[in-house]
Amino acid sequence: MERSSSRRDGAGCYDDDLLNSESDGKQNKEVGEMDSIERIFESKEVPPWQNQLTVRAFVVSFILGVMFTFIVMKLNLTTGIIPSLNVSAGLLGFFFVKTWTKFLNKSGLLKQPFTRQENTVIQTCVVATSGIAFSGGFGSYLFGMSDVIAKQSNEDNASQNVKNPSLGWMIGFLFVVSFLGLFSVVPLRKIMIIDFKLIYPSGTATAHLINSFHTPQGAKLAKRQVRTLGKFFTFSFLWGLFQWFFTAGEGCGFSNFPSLGLAAHENKFYFDFSATYVGVGMICPYLINVSLLVGAIISWGLMWPLINLRKGDWYSADLDSGSLQGLQGYRVFIGIAMILGDGLYNFFKVLGHTLFGLYRQVRDKKSETELPVSRNSSSGLSSLSYDDQRRTQLFLKDQIPMWIAIVGYLVIAAISILTIPHIFRQLKWYHIAVIYLFAPTLAFCNAYGCGLTDWSLASTYGKLAIFIIGAWAGGSNGGVLAGLAACGVMMNIVSTASDLMQDFKTGYMTLASPRSMFISQVIGTAMGCIISPCVFWLFYKAFNNLGTPDSEYPAPYALIYRNMAILGVEGFSSLPKHCIALCYGFFGAAIAINGIRDAVGKEKARFIPIPMAMAIPFYIGGYFAIDMCVGSLILFVWSKVNKAKAAAFGSAVASGLICGDGIWTLPSSILALVGVRPPICMKFLSRGANAKVDKFLGS
Amino acid sequence: MERSSSRRDGAGCYDDDLLNSESDGKQNKEVGEMDSIERIFESKEVPPWQNQLTVRAFVVSFILGVMFTFIVMKLNLTTGIIPSLNVSAGLLGFFFVKTWTKFLNKSGLLKQPFTRQENTVIQTCVVATSGIAFSGGFGSYLFGMSDVIAKQSNEDNASQNVKNPSLGWMIGFLFVVSFLGLFSVVPLRKIMIIDFKLIYPSGTATAHLINSFHTPQGAKLAKRQVRTLGKFFTFSFLWGLFQWFFTAGEGCGFSNFPSLGLAAHENKFYFDFSATYVGVGMICPYLINVSLLVGAIISWGLMWPLINLRKGDWYSADLDSGSLQGLQGYRVFIGIAMILGDGLYNFFKVLGHTLFGLYRQVRDKKSETELPVSRNSSSGLSSLSYDDQRRTQLFLKDQIPMWIAIVGYLVIAAISILTIPHIFRQLKWYHIAVIYLFAPTLAFCNAYGCGLTDWSLASTYGKLAIFIIGAWAGGSNGGVLAGLAACGVMMNIVSTASDLMQDFKTGYMTLASPRSMFISQVIGTAMGCIISPCVFWLFYKAFNNLGTPDSEYPAPYALIYRNMAILGVEGFSSLPKHCIALCYGFFGAAIAINGIRDAVGKEKARFIPIPMAMAIPFYIGGYFAIDMCVGSLILFVWSKVNKAKAAAFGSAVASGLICGDGIWTLPSSILALVGVRPPICMKFLSRGANAKVDKFLGS
Repeated sequence: MERSSSRRDGAGCYDDDLLNSESDGKQNKEVGEMDSIERIFESKEVPPWQNQLTVRAFVVSFILGVMFTFIVMKLNLTTGIIPSLNVSAGLLGFFFVKTWTKFLNKSGLLKQPFTRQENTVIQTCVVATSGIAFSGGFGSYLFGMSDVIAKQSNEDNASQNVKNPSLGWMIGFLFVVSFLGLFSVVPLRKIMIIDFKLIYPSGTATAHLINSFHTPQGAKLAKRQVRTLGKFFTFSFLWGLFQWFFTAGEGCGFSNFPSLGLAAHENKFYFDFSATYVGVGMICPYLINVSLLVGAIISWGLMWPLINLRKGDWYSADLDSGSLQGLQGYRVFIGIAMILGDGLYNFFKVLGHTLFGLYRQVRDKKSETELPVSRNSSSGLSSLSYDDQRRTQLFLKDQIPMWIAIVGYLVIAAISILTIPHIFRQLKWYHIAVIYLFAPTLAFCNAYGCGLTDWSLASTYGKLAIFIIGAWAGGSNGGVLAGLAACGVMMNIVSTASDLMQDFKTGYMTLASPRSMFISQVIGTAMGCIISPCVFWLFYKAFNNLGTPDSEYPAPYALIYRNMAILGVEGFSSLPKHCIALCYGFFGAAIAINGIRDAVGKEKARFIPIPMAMAIPFYIGGYFAIDMCVGSLILFVWSKVNKAKAAAFGSAVASGLICGDGIWTLPSSILALVGVRPPICMKFLSRGANAKVDKFLGS
Repeated sequence: MERSSSRRDGAGCYDDDLLNSESDGKQNKEVGEMDSIERIFESKEVPPWQNQLTVRAFVVSFILGVMFTFIVMKLNLTTGIIPSLNVSAGLLGFFFVKTWTKFLNKSGLLKQPFTRQENTVIQTCVVATSGIAFSGGFGSYLFGMSDVIAKQSNEDNASQNVKNPSLGWMIGFLFVVSFLGLFSVVPLRKIMIIDFKLIYPSGTATAHLINSFHTPQGAKLAKRQVRTLGKFFTFSFLWGLFQWFFTAGEGCGFSNFPSLGLAAHENKFYFDFSATYVGVGMICPYLINVSLLVGAIISWGLMWPLINLRKGDWYSADLDSGSLQGLQGYRVFIGIAMILGDGLYNFFKVLGHTLFGLYRQVRDKKSETELPVSRNSSSGLSSLSYDDQRRTQLFLKDQIPMWIAIVGYLVIAAISILTIPHIFRQLKWYHIAVIYLFAPTLAFCNAYGCGLTDWSLASTYGKLAIFIIGAWAGGSNGGVLAGLAACGVMMNIVSTASDLMQDFKTGYMTLASPRSMFISQVIGTAMGCIISPCVFWLFYKAFNNLGTPDSEYPAPYALIYRNMAILGVEGFSSLPKHCIALCYGFFGAAIAINGIRDAVGKEKARFIPIPMAMAIPFYIGGYFAIDMCVGSLILFVWSKVNKAKAAAFGSAVASGLICGDGIWTLPSSILALVGVRPPICMKFLSRGANAKVDKFLGS
């Protein structure tokens, strides 16, 4: 594999070594020390994978897992917006174990020092545990099945589409669906991280954080990087704190700042002052950020306003703004079509390479345990930087045999196909079988998209399942419930795929063994399958009005998901006019653009946007693309002013920004839990509305 | 005179060489070149004072004067808030003449090159011209005399208290009162700038700007400073532009950002994001900024909230919040008392020194044209930096004889005493004589306070005149009109004193001759006395509804001033309870603190706040003190990180911030003139109010 001369003008986005700032050391002689993090860590032994899994790690993981599950559950049931907790998990894991080992060390009882690998294991386990609280759908599909929610939406056949929560079936359901994601991740691991060198911004930032905690004494540049990270961490945290005070209500605060004007804001074009996404933008290559912006302009700048003009013609004018039968339908389905196009293209590309490699292997009678997918695993190792060499070496050392993944997947799928129809009699075995047939592909798409842009679109894929299975089952056969259950099956796989791939990236960069991480994930998932339903059960029993609007816990997404399922049973015909045609178009375009990118060669491909990245703002809006472009801009200007410094400290700054904001979610969630609400609303009104409001407040 | 070792920990605030960053060069060997701006300019000849006064300069001044008068007049009649236009005048003056000389130079016709002295002359002339548009009171006292305004306030004896605008008497009035300020400034000039080394932040910033425009080629550090200034100028300008978009209504925008919470905001404690005052804070010494903050805490943090608890007891509870009979009365009069205490202390101190010097002079039979006020003019010159030596030398070269100032003042005062009673028959000659007796002292106080903090409190002194003369004349003898006219007489002197002293500071730092500046000010004032009434007349005739509420030109301050005058005729007895006693207390405290400051010596005096600075936030509030402390903090941190760089570029950054924001006032004023209003209101509501507003907007 070639390496481009500079880190961010990379020819091609995922074929390139875009991420590791360390690997650019050769171009930056001024900063002599920087060319390797792993050289700094050379003196520290990497413990064998069995030793990375300690009892104390799992005790801490359990405590943190319970804590985070409470936080996620509360957020599920109040606003429904769940932040990423990767960073908090890493930081708190470090803090807990460090305090413990320091204490033991002082009392002379410490047997095993605390390593960054152990830290990563904790982080992975906690993410797996608390991830279930989200993908378990306690605020969305699962709770959407209850009669509390069913009463709120007017539908036919309500009785056959209700299943009230109960501790037993919830734990059972989660156990049979949650581990599938894990096994589908295993074979993707090497492709995504070693071959594609995907970025996984959160995972990378967490790795930088963990590395910085464990940096041995004496490394000068590393120390300065740690200090830089610390500074921006503090800044980002305080900025989060400051912002919080101004978010007293809906639409308040900096995250709704119409920095480009009110009209642009309405079309989701604004800079939302998110330190996280500015940091993510600094880590992602320019091409990704530009692709996102191009996608945002095409969709929110052109298509949606144009389609909006057809309101009343292409779709009914008196629909709710969130209805999938209206504009929202175009957004969701066209976005998914494009993501699927890109994902499938790459999936089949990889598959082709794999089969070709297998064929050659068989022909040459070589024996290798891992599939020789990669284009550079055979030839490229020596051309990599020291960091990448060492990381790749350790990442590939402890293999998880392919057959375990395949057998594991098949066995669990079989169990799942057999048991789920007993839990939800509306969902037939063939529905589940079909989902499991396609799920790995979609998991691939999601893990891949997440690696590029840090966005997990698990809930979007879940909506797809609602639609397809709901329509298939049909309204008269309890299609609503079938759809919701299918959503759960799908979301668990797809969400786990992206979450755990982030962790593998962290593991890759901290030399944690994939085997220890896999086991940690299995244990974490198992803990999650028990903890999450229990915590939900606690809420469900403690608050009688759970899920009713205007209550303390309205669980807004539960109703939204149920309404989607109700729509779903009517099938694709209920989609607005031309939506399917547009989906085909964009699906084709995604494949075509990818084909062109591969055809023109790396040098030219860097001027062609990536469809996967373009599609994400279709649904979400352009604001985060603008944040990320601001991050790019900062890095670009910095590089112009001082290239060496920008290369040496860029990722430290970015990680600091991401992690500080990430940690702030913890206290802010706790504030929400204990009922402390921000005091001020920073509101943005048009001049006319403001005059009205002033009059209203004056009178 | 001793010089402290570092620029801003200065022992004593005005005795010290706090301002000139250039003079610190010796302490910053790292930045070798920086120790003198004047060395850079050494190659450039300073033209004799006659040559600094060119015809082109006055043509440009006239054009800019008319333009700025229009802007100020419009602002007078709309919001009543007038920004400082010093910087714009300097910049546009440069731009106009430079374009002109470049053109001439190309065509080979250029006889005299454009110098920074000529630039300063233009700036001075424009400030003098446009200053009249403010101090002429077209939006306040003068228009407050008209029957349009009189009709809006219910009062007795309205008929004898009305004088409608007319071109003739307005021009006459301005001519007889406006030149007095000029002559009272002349003797203060040396005291304020050479002896006290006062800062005049705007004047200093303008001087830096003008110097930077004219920096000769080849000066490396100077070039870097200019670039830094340019960068922060641009930033500050763009920041002003960005802020503008969010100020669609009253209380909107960043300048109302409750950054310390809503309760603090109500008591005027907040950071208002003003680039100007952050820059001013960077130029002012720490002691000033801390004094302002201490004053803000004492007044808005303690006294006003405590007095507010006595509402209904100390003063009537159903008063308007702006009424001088309520809380506002305490604010205005206690603040004035403290300023007067400090001002008088320093006035008599200077007078003492002067008389003692005169006595010694007579005894020693020396002959000097200038009064030997200074403690360092005789001994200190050699201990000064090269810059200060050269500037002092040129500033003292072209003298304006003391007798001209005294004779000028007396003659104009005499004319004015004779003529004004003919214009306003309600104002008696002895009223005016008394004003003129005290005016120089008050002009001294204002010029001194402005030098310390950049705030001109001309309108506050004007209010004092309304009160005293109004009460003296009495309600039955047209006291309202007498008060308003007295306000005009007072404001013109006091406002001119501070405005022109700012210009003298600019002149000092650009080696402009005081003589050419004086003449430029005379010409500028004369132009202003004609231009301003004419422009007002234009507005008055063009818009029939001038001065009526809810119209395009409500002239809000006209009614406020008239109401103050109506209150004034009732005398001091109308002031709220204990107000006079508190005034005595703070007047005494100001004198006592000054006495202590002088008694303990410079070393300890730097821990004792300056009463003058403490008093300013009494009336205005703490927000600008917080801005300025933020400026201090930035400089402090910067100095800790890189002392040499902070010393070399601190004033460039500060000047850039001040000037950029200053220039933005020009386009923003023009936008207001042509009726373009900002589209968005960034509003800050409490959680409760927000909920109400959301409900209101939803319904």
